[in-house]
Amino acid sequence: MIDLYTASTPNGWKASITLEELALPYRVHAITLSKNEQKENWFLEINPNGRIPAIVDRDSRAGFPVFESGAIMMYLAEKTGLLMPSDVDGRSRVIQWLMFQIGGLGPMMGQANLFHRNWHERYQPAIDRYQNEGRRLLTVLDRRLRESAWLAGPEYTIADIANWCWAQWHSRCGVSIEGLSALQHWMQAIEARPAVQKGMKVPGDTRCQAIPQACRTSPEPQRIVKKA
Amino acid sequence: MIDLYTASTPNGWKASITLEELALPYRVHAITLSKNEQKENWFLEINPNGRIPAIVDRDSRAGFPVFESGAIMMYLAEKTGLLMPSDVDGRSRVIQWLMFQIGGLGPMMGQANLFHRNWHERYQPAIDRYQNEGRRLLTVLDRRLRESAWLAGPEYTIADIANWCWAQWHSRCGVSIEGLSALQHWMQAIEARPAVQKGMKVPGDTRCQAIPQACRTSPEPQRIVKKA
Repeated sequence: MIDLYTASTPNGWKASITLEELALPYRVHAITLSKNEQKENWFLEINPNGRIPAIVDRDSRAGFPVFESGAIMMYLAEKTGLLMPSDVDGRSRVIQWLMFQIGGLGPMMGQANLFHRNWHERYQPAIDRYQNEGRRLLTVLDRRLRESAWLAGPEYTIADIANWCWAQWHSRCGVSIEGLSALQHWMQAIEARPAVQKGMKVPGDTRCQAIPQACRTSPEPQRIVKKA
Repeated sequence: MIDLYTASTPNGWKASITLEELALPYRVHAITLSKNEQKENWFLEINPNGRIPAIVDRDSRAGFPVFESGAIMMYLAEKTGLLMPSDVDGRSRVIQWLMFQIGGLGPMMGQANLFHRNWHERYQPAIDRYQNEGRRLLTVLDRRLRESAWLAGPEYTIADIANWCWAQWHSRCGVSIEGLSALQHWMQAIEARPAVQKGMKVPGDTRCQAIPQACRTSPEPQRIVKKA
């Protein structure tokens, strides 16, 4: 059983979609970011950086904590041998496109969202910078997807999940995907996957506050526990 | 033999220091960012994102290109079986702290540097945001280093190299490390390593422009080729 500590953000969905795709049993603990629950001492024991998502793998003796969404995805893919090829070159291609999201698309779209929606004043030069960089990075994905069905090659992998979670936030960040037809086609294909639709509903009812115990009040997280 | 395409930046040094630590033979190709060489078509064949560093592993049939500094570090560590433990938990801890740098420390220090030094006007709210976030992340490292000799456990790994490359840029970014004594101690220990000192001199003479062939004019990159 895996304990997932998460909230409704692209980084959170990277973890929940991966768990759904792998059909791993997991228990959801919704973290309320507005109450800064991710900065509480009990959570810093799991993730010293105080950010969601984080997991604790209870299958491992004493419980093994993993923080950073990209590290969680790799850990789960390697635990199951799925969503990432095992040959050296194929594996590296997945890691390259995963890192592209972690170090590029995620941070840049995140700053676009910040200055576009959540900044205390309208500061157009920063909005322009991050929206332009977001668009440029989505164009890199589009170019890649014109030559390859999936980002890392012929198979759907964690690299697709990670990049999709941020690409699908484009309108919230004020970044257009107009004219990027290969990207749009890829986005629709991922969006249609049942595991993606389920993962996007996690943590569901974020009023659920039974922390650090398992959620008690929300039917959604309870229902998510699969394969006892 | 590995071809390294790089410039004098923290992300570039992550790759060159890793190659030095692993004592792998490599050939340096200096990329002049001010001339946008990283956006030229021949380079986009290696890294579709048009950023440094990138490598091509000529030991692999047909040459295997790897982009994204974090992916390069993992590829080289796995190629040699060094700088990253092979057990599941130990490996994951390295990946967690590596991802902390890729998705957190790197982008935030990068934006601090941008608004502090390279922005067209002084916009204090953005300077404050990114310098504060940089300081917060360095404080997370400091707290970790009070309990552990190295970031991922008892051994020096690629996670230390990656985070050090950005931590040592703190004064350029206007971020103080005052009072972070465990971080300072760790920084000094890494700085003293001969491989780190060698890696920081790469690509050396950036006037060298023999691209995409190996550097011909600079003695520094030529000298770096080790073990034929």
